[in-house]
Amino acid sequence: MTGNSFGKLFKITTFGESHGKAVGVIIDGCPSGLEINESDIQREVDKRKPGQSIIATERREEDKIEIMSGIFEGRTTGTPIAIIVKNTDADSSKYENIKEIFRPGHADFTFFKKFGIRDFRGGGRASARETVARVAAGAVAKKIISKEGIKITGHVIQIHNIKAKKFEPEEIEKNNVKCADSNAAKQMEQAILNAKAKADSVGGLIEIKIENVPAGLGEPIFDKLDALIAQSIMSIPAVKGIEIGRGFDTINLFGSENNDGMSFEKNKIKFKSNNAGGILGGISNGNTIIVRFAVKPTSSIKKPQNTIDSKGNEKTIKIEGRHDPCIAPRAVPVGEAMIALVLADALLIQKTRSV
Amino acid sequence: MTGNSFGKLFKITTFGESHGKAVGVIIDGCPSGLEINESDIQREVDKRKPGQSIIATERREEDKIEIMSGIFEGRTTGTPIAIIVKNTDADSSKYENIKEIFRPGHADFTFFKKFGIRDFRGGGRASARETVARVAAGAVAKKIISKEGIKITGHVIQIHNIKAKKFEPEEIEKNNVKCADSNAAKQMEQAILNAKAKADSVGGLIEIKIENVPAGLGEPIFDKLDALIAQSIMSIPAVKGIEIGRGFDTINLFGSENNDGMSFEKNKIKFKSNNAGGILGGISNGNTIIVRFAVKPTSSIKKPQNTIDSKGNEKTIKIEGRHDPCIAPRAVPVGEAMIALVLADALLIQKTRSV
Amino acid sequence: MTGNSFGKLFKITTFGESHGKAVGVIIDGCPSGLEINESDIQREVDKRKPGQSIIATERREEDKIEIMSGIFEGRTTGTPIAIIVKNTDADSSKYENIKEIFRPGHADFTFFKKFGIRDFRGGGRASARETVARVAAGAVAKKIISKEGIKITGHVIQIHNIKAKKFEPEEIEKNNVKCADSNAAKQMEQAILNAKAKADSVGGLIEIKIENVPAGLGEPIFDKLDALIAQSIMSIPAVKGIEIGRGFDTINLFGSENNDGMSFEKNKIKFKSNNAGGILGGISNGNTIIVRFAVKPTSSIKKPQNTIDSKGNEKTIKIEGRHDPCIAPRAVPVGEAMIALVLADALLIQKTRSV
Amino acid sequence: MTGNSFGKLFKITTFGESHGKAVGVIIDGCPSGLEINESDIQREVDKRKPGQSIIATERREEDKIEIMSGIFEGRTTGTPIAIIVKNTDADSSKYENIKEIFRPGHADFTFFKKFGIRDFRGGGRASARETVARVAAGAVAKKIISKEGIKITGHVIQIHNIKAKKFEPEEIEKNNVKCADSNAAKQMEQAILNAKAKADSVGGLIEIKIENVPAGLGEPIFDKLDALIAQSIMSIPAVKGIEIGRGFDTINLFGSENNDGMSFEKNKIKFKSNNAGGILGGISNGNTIIVRFAVKPTSSIKKPQNTIDSKGNEKTIKIEGRHDPCIAPRAVPVGEAMIALVLADALLIQKTRSV
Repeated sequence: MTGNSFGKLFKITTFGESHGKAVGVIIDGCPSGLEINESDIQREVDKRKPGQSIIATERREEDKIEIMSGIFEGRTTGTPIAIIVKNTDADSSKYENIKEIFRPGHADFTFFKKFGIRDFRGGGRASARETVARVAAGAVAKKIISKEGIKITGHVIQIHNIKAKKFEPEEIEKNNVKCADSNAAKQMEQAILNAKAKADSVGGLIEIKIENVPAGLGEPIFDKLDALIAQSIMSIPAVKGIEIGRGFDTINLFGSENNDGMSFEKNKIKFKSNNAGGILGGISNGNTIIVRFAVKPTSSIKKPQNTIDSKGNEKTIKIEGRHDPCIAPRAVPVGEAMIALVLADALLIQKTRSV
Repeated sequence: MTGNSFGKLFKITTFGESHGKAVGVIIDGCPSGLEINESDIQREVDKRKPGQSIIATERREEDKIEIMSGIFEGRTTGTPIAIIVKNTDADSSKYENIKEIFRPGHADFTFFKKFGIRDFRGGGRASARETVARVAAGAVAKKIISKEGIKITGHVIQIHNIKAKKFEPEEIEKNNVKCADSNAAKQMEQAILNAKAKADSVGGLIEIKIENVPAGLGEPIFDKLDALIAQSIMSIPAVKGIEIGRGFDTINLFGSENNDGMSFEKNKIKFKSNNAGGILGGISNGNTIIVRFAVKPTSSIKKPQNTIDSKGNEKTIKIEGRHDPCIAPRAVPVGEAMIALVLADALLIQKTRSV
Repeated sequence: MTGNSFGKLFKITTFGESHGKAVGVIIDGCPSGLEINESDIQREVDKRKPGQSIIATERREEDKIEIMSGIFEGRTTGTPIAIIVKNTDADSSKYENIKEIFRPGHADFTFFKKFGIRDFRGGGRASARETVARVAAGAVAKKIISKEGIKITGHVIQIHNIKAKKFEPEEIEKNNVKCADSNAAKQMEQAILNAKAKADSVGGLIEIKIENVPAGLGEPIFDKLDALIAQSIMSIPAVKGIEIGRGFDTINLFGSENNDGMSFEKNKIKFKSNNAGGILGGISNGNTIIVRFAVKPTSSIKKPQNTIDSKGNEKTIKIEGRHDPCIAPRAVPVGEAMIALVLADALLIQKTRSV
Repeated sequence: MTGNSFGKLFKITTFGESHGKAVGVIIDGCPSGLEINESDIQREVDKRKPGQSIIATERREEDKIEIMSGIFEGRTTGTPIAIIVKNTDADSSKYENIKEIFRPGHADFTFFKKFGIRDFRGGGRASARETVARVAAGAVAKKIISKEGIKITGHVIQIHNIKAKKFEPEEIEKNNVKCADSNAAKQMEQAILNAKAKADSVGGLIEIKIENVPAGLGEPIFDKLDALIAQSIMSIPAVKGIEIGRGFDTINLFGSENNDGMSFEKNKIKFKSNNAGGILGGISNGNTIIVRFAVKPTSSIKKPQNTIDSKGNEKTIKIEGRHDPCIAPRAVPVGEAMIALVLADALLIQKTRSV
């Protein structure tokens, strides 16, 4: 109700501030009998870990997950799975001086207006640190959907003005920007370093492909698969736009160009194209689902900015802290996690939709 | 749970098929004491009525709303408001021949895969006819938000390759394409007629501005205001992309360009720009909220298309029926309604967020 | 959220006031492919119809149900099922004089305090008339659970001080008080008529048996099967208490008496007793579920009562209108419907609880 | 959805098994600005702590709560409050021998049928140990409702055949059975010790009074205040019945006896009686709310019992472990907590029910 839960049958509820004791998640509704252990979850969480390269924040969190409940002898029991990640490297001292100041591009001002109080340390609940809980939960969701053969591949296709030109999935984990084009990856890294050198930041574009989704998932009319994907992705910090399949570009097409014709090939249904991005009428059609979303340039920059404080004064601020000059690569596992959550839930609901 | 409800406190549940007896909605959670009557709702519903111009479908529905409950002596009583619109001009005969055929770009195939059965008449539940219930409910939501001074203005900013160049809001209701630029409107109409003449269809881009939203609305982390707007808009038939503020274009900016600096002007907080589109960290910041979304070209076209039927045969189909060659203009009031629903709900929730 | 929906996957949302245009319900989440038609629903609705005997209200509602959506060619389509019952015999004139007066035992005062406004005609939303929508929805739920062999039998076991001494289920529909003991039934009718003659009213005790429930239904820890049954039954107008199995009487037993031992009989699990009433730890154990609930004496009586009005005056009131002097018999089908709703939902959820 | 969340706006989600690492709760929707600290919560949790007297289990849990998030500088921030209680004195060895055996009166069999797997150690999720999370959350809820002046008083009014005859609230915390009648308390303790001596157990009856509840709380028709109280109370382990006000006894009254007449006394509304128990039509009427519920005798007894195992064998079982021979006194703070949760939520929702 008040925003910290997501999903219906496979439902997560997360908690935690950047510089509090811990962040974590309760997963309610995970089916019993699913084989899973801490390392399955840790592996996914490690993908978004800060401090993995020179282009990321220097905060060094171990991000060690602890399962508190719901798993017994290597299997889920059907009861709530609680996962906790303690905050160990939080350095709140750098935030004392911005206690009363609203950082531009951040949620400082809006949390203050909403709640009349805010935990200013490290951005509090508005910090991207909360996404570690999403990724941990997403790891469990991935276990469920992978049983159906569903495979999620996220990658960065643009950083600032550098675009990927190839899709070689084996490259994604080999570079610091999670790009499937090794040449573009190098230029992207350079673009980020250039921005950092200028005390500035850049944004990026992410694409997620979801293969082998069975036709029939999604709940019209408000919980259409694309509608929930849109919600889930837009809820990730710094995301400002989302499109499915051909997306905004469909405006430039005629209906006869945009519609994906159907035929049979070796007795299997075949779409002649995939402009719909795997979803029709809000329900998966069996084609690969294609999602793209825009991540704005990191709001925390060292360049001086004009702003105000809560006492009514105008201020100039240079944000110190430890921040990624481009958050897009670290948003890839978060995007994958959110989509895994949407799909695990949709799969469970679909089990109940026919007698 | 299974997709036909939207909202938490101000919650709607809709029903109805295109060629069934009626479409309708129950609004649960509307505060008591709100002055409203049938004409307030009828006026909004009339904005999306089909058959209003040569460029729209020829189906002639009167779309007469009936309030069944929840309003007494001109005021809401706090109990559920049920609104019904009977289907009067449904002509199912044209759908007999597509009973077993999956129309490209439509939800025929996916509903069949989901439910194993479908009401093929006029697209059944997947028809855009269901949006009349959203608009009726949105009219009640608009009453609530207008008490706070919130104003929603939707308009078409692009049809196919024709873009609006001016924003003169008084023009919007004067043309058939709901465009705020009268010159562009003429070209857009022509583009639609050209597509129709070629038995084809075109898509469009819609922008919605929401003015005077108080800072503080939206529920991080999953029900952020932009996340719910994204869900609500993406749930509208034919929408393939959504962005907030500068949206996808933020990728091209540096952080120092994208962040909206703050200052005071005559003792009021002032943002130097509005790249964020009125939302920071998922919470409204008091600035105008800017939403843009892409509507794909209408799937129903008279041009022959390759498809299959449910018996395993390849088919060629020409879709007869009565269809808008461009659905974008009619999606404007629907988009406004969805945003009104999101905001009415957010306003109510915000009443409970501080002691 | 605000009280007019019930259930998770098989979810109903009801609307309607006693003297408004109609009462009705939307069922969302009903699986597709279920065979059902209007007469299946009408038959159940007829069981609670007013005006069936000399001991019931004289209001004569036809209670004709109309299905507006969600059923096509005799089967559910998986989309929302809307059912409407128009109010035809509402006579509001008798309520003009109590417009400002709070009837003792009624919700007049509390609705006024809650909403600041009330539809006083016939009790508005607080009238037991709303239960027609529950019964209509329950008829669909019964279709689902009967496919699993589940059978629900409700009957009156006490009216005022008259208790049933036998359980002959075939008797239930043969008398006006839905009692399974024909002798007791006669005395119960007389007790009701006696109360009526004294311008007074009486209450009753209802028992519902639910046979053939598979073990495993119910969702600890808050949506335990007995917890949801308790909510569902206590939500029925005039109900003041609910117990499961041996209920309040377990206080008088030792643990060794109360625990239901287990054994095998012809290879089937057998409980030596059923003090638990078919539910252990909030989950069905395969034994017959036993529910009992108390229905208070009808609040509307012709005897003069002391009360107040909304203007601050003390008043004496004699309630005219047309009212059942004992509502318990008519609460039987409502109780059955609520339990059917709980079980249909539990069955659907249980489909998703293991991989 | 799957049972581990309760509440709408003030919503809790709990986790944890009896012998897992921890039990805990996330509270989402707590208003910001509420003053609260760990000791406020610890104090309530201590009230249900095991091992406090010779009549309770010998398990010695420290039940030390840890707040992980949502509270900053002594005030709630509006973000989720996570509270954790580690399990420290779990001794699973005594459960090895019942790994495959279904204890009579317990949820062993039903969890096994539901999930196909169960964490048998200490009853797993079905253990009353989970109620510590409810009490912790209830402590926060009590802070909210006490700001409105609401006061909750729970006490034991019957153990086996011993009934309290006086209500002296200051006595409640002075004896081991939470009885407001010191003489009865002594006899109750003796009755429990007698049962223990016979390797048996007894049950009890609890009454909760809630004073100073403002009129207007509760959401008809399914979330009536009494309906949610019924759900919340029936969800407590071992509860088999619940009644409001005069409850089951209303069956014995005429309507003219049962209706609570109204008058004015010193300009304040006054009810001549409180048979309704403070709730009319599912909405609080301003009178004291009276709830009574039955707690069955503890299922775990040392007396030999007949049962079966999961392999198809009949067995005799004597339950060793460490168990309360009467759980009723420890159910008092749990009942209070559940009611506090219902009321905190109802208060928040009521803020949104009028314009």
